[in-house]
Amino acid sequence: MRVREDRLREDLLTNGEFGAVDVERGYGRTVLTGSDADRKAREYLVEQLEALGMDVRVDAVGNIAGRWTPESADPDVAPIAAGSHLDSVPHGGIFDGPLGVYSAVEAVRAMQDAGVEPERPIEVVSFTEEEGQRFEVGTLGSSVAVGDTEIEEALALTDDSGTTLETHLENTGFRGEGALDVAGWDAWFEIHVEQSTTLEDADVPVGIVTAITGITNCSVEIVGAADHAGGTHMDDRSDALLAASEFVQEVNEIAHEIVETESEFAVATVGNMEIEPNARNVVAGRVAISTDFRDTDRDVMDEIVDRADKSLARIEKQHELTAELDNYRTIDPAHMTDRCLEALREAGERRGIETMELPSGGGHDSMKVARVTDAGMLFAPSRDGISHSPLEWTDWEDCARTADVLTGAIAELAGVDDV
Amino acid sequence: MRVREDRLREDLLTNGEFGAVDVERGYGRTVLTGSDADRKAREYLVEQLEALGMDVRVDAVGNIAGRWTPESADPDVAPIAAGSHLDSVPHGGIFDGPLGVYSAVEAVRAMQDAGVEPERPIEVVSFTEEEGQRFEVGTLGSSVAVGDTEIEEALALTDDSGTTLETHLENTGFRGEGALDVAGWDAWFEIHVEQSTTLEDADVPVGIVTAITGITNCSVEIVGAADHAGGTHMDDRSDALLAASEFVQEVNEIAHEIVETESEFAVATVGNMEIEPNARNVVAGRVAISTDFRDTDRDVMDEIVDRADKSLARIEKQHELTAELDNYRTIDPAHMTDRCLEALREAGERRGIETMELPSGGGHDSMKVARVTDAGMLFAPSRDGISHSPLEWTDWEDCARTADVLTGAIAELAGVDDV
Repeated sequence: MRVREDRLREDLLTNGEFGAVDVERGYGRTVLTGSDADRKAREYLVEQLEALGMDVRVDAVGNIAGRWTPESADPDVAPIAAGSHLDSVPHGGIFDGPLGVYSAVEAVRAMQDAGVEPERPIEVVSFTEEEGQRFEVGTLGSSVAVGDTEIEEALALTDDSGTTLETHLENTGFRGEGALDVAGWDAWFEIHVEQSTTLEDADVPVGIVTAITGITNCSVEIVGAADHAGGTHMDDRSDALLAASEFVQEVNEIAHEIVETESEFAVATVGNMEIEPNARNVVAGRVAISTDFRDTDRDVMDEIVDRADKSLARIEKQHELTAELDNYRTIDPAHMTDRCLEALREAGERRGIETMELPSGGGHDSMKVARVTDAGMLFAPSRDGISHSPLEWTDWEDCARTADVLTGAIAELAGVDDV
Repeated sequence: MRVREDRLREDLLTNGEFGAVDVERGYGRTVLTGSDADRKAREYLVEQLEALGMDVRVDAVGNIAGRWTPESADPDVAPIAAGSHLDSVPHGGIFDGPLGVYSAVEAVRAMQDAGVEPERPIEVVSFTEEEGQRFEVGTLGSSVAVGDTEIEEALALTDDSGTTLETHLENTGFRGEGALDVAGWDAWFEIHVEQSTTLEDADVPVGIVTAITGITNCSVEIVGAADHAGGTHMDDRSDALLAASEFVQEVNEIAHEIVETESEFAVATVGNMEIEPNARNVVAGRVAISTDFRDTDRDVMDEIVDRADKSLARIEKQHELTAELDNYRTIDPAHMTDRCLEALREAGERRGIETMELPSGGGHDSMKVARVTDAGMLFAPSRDGISHSPLEWTDWEDCARTADVLTGAIAELAGVDDV
């Protein structure tokens, strides 16, 4: 029971033609929810699902699920589901999203080709508006499907021109009813491109995602005194940018210490500053920063916040200015389920495909799904870690290897003797 | 021979009514070159000069000079000149500029009251557009008068609305001919508010400016790699903001070391950053900075640049990114003349007025004048160092004390036995 690289490649290249953009290198596409490209991509998917004898359901927010219920399966037991999303960022790549959807399609094909007899139905799923590019809310379809967002609330979201999601879905013929019952799935799997270089650096073709890191954001405000750069003696300054620079250094040191001692994949970033007056000849009077700390362990995230806050207090005292940190938002980490991880590990072993475990630093639909049912996730290597770009690339062989591991895990959880 | 505080105060308050702005606290004024307020301020000055029997000359760019040639003086010998400017920044204070002009007026009044017999003519001068607020070129009038800027070039400068300086001067009746002959002055003195707190902190009423610091500017560009804050491991980052923060720290350390060992008043400022993409969830890919280093010694300025450049090279190597420093502009320090400093020191001693010597961190017309003739400058204390604000304040008593020191120095260099 193996996937066919040629069929997967053809699906991804065909899907990549919907909303294709002219680029010198690579393959680019722009697929915004409700666009003509989105309609074509959805219609092509439905064709593939129906060609496999699947019952296709579209829910109120346009999430698509094709269900294969072979004669061997009890139609009333919880299905195994897999998929991802088809929408893209503007000038995005052809792998981010579609690789997960068409790997699931190819898994069903491989199982049908092998004539196996699953005990559970298999669903192939494409969630709406994962990228949040048209309605500014990411993982929108999966949020509705897990009950985080009300259907009516989602449908009422408007794009830049004031058009609602509902109108876009009606125009493209993908406004269905109700919401997919994610909580009713026995298990869920998603393949996504890594969007970083961990797999590439390790030269491993398949990554098993252990958790999607949580994110905690702090707003930091440092207020000193804006003074003339010529007239203010070095000892008389209350320099907000100097203090902010020290904070950037300390956050970086805290993150490195935590990486070395507690959590290899913890990250802490200060990537922005609002500086006032931001003039060459004026000592900065105020700096505002918004920080981004991530880890798979909420305790580690809290520790970073706590240590950053203590550093800031020390800086405040030393520089005789005022500094405040407000930990204004936290998204908890989402851990993948042990039995799904185990199924993925074993599928790799059975096929002789090397896997490695790693967290996902970015958010995905699986983050939502994992809150209501068992979930597992795979990463395929991203060349140079590039994504959201026509230069996004995963070797076809790696696409196929990752899809093969997915197929083995789906098969096993569906009660098939995977060989 | 003493100035009268009441007359000086009346002049400053009357002058402060031209372009006065409504403020809750303090006295604010907006006097942009060529405005109605500017015309009124100039006309009032001319009245005061003529009331003292001075011959008033207006040059092509509107610089005003009143010359008092008493019978005791040889009209052909080089005069002693003193003054400053009448224009202001928008919502500026009433002392910055006018204190220097009306202290010079009051010095002449005091000499006339005392019936002294100067051997040299005395000139009272007001330079045009010192603030550079309307035509974006500071110390414009003095630049023309010392030959740094051509008359035609200055007259052709346009304001935001496209109106030339020439038109503004013609409209207000202050477009004269030629340029003041600054090089032909025997000596020049200017009083200005300190715009910092050195005098206030030392509780000394009069500052003798030893030099106007030079300024050297560098543009610094640090280019790393913009990466996803979630997906990029701490060890894989090329963080331009982290490197820039280290540079800010090091520039600050360099300046403090130089203050402690070489030059008490050296300053080095990083007050601005242009960060790309400046987003919370992206490791910064590029940071551009423009630095401001000042000292009264060109060698010290060059040393700061050299050490900052070396620091940047070390940061570049350590962080594996590219960093460049371009020392794109240098204005040399302007040293006041020994005999002028001595005259000011002695005038303070004769009057029992405490003085202290200090450099000026900001630029003034004296910076231009000192390049072509002997120059001396006095600072009056600025409350809390505030200037360019309605809260700018110098106690009337300190205004009078500073004007008294000025009067003594002018008198001495004009050959009067100052008592």
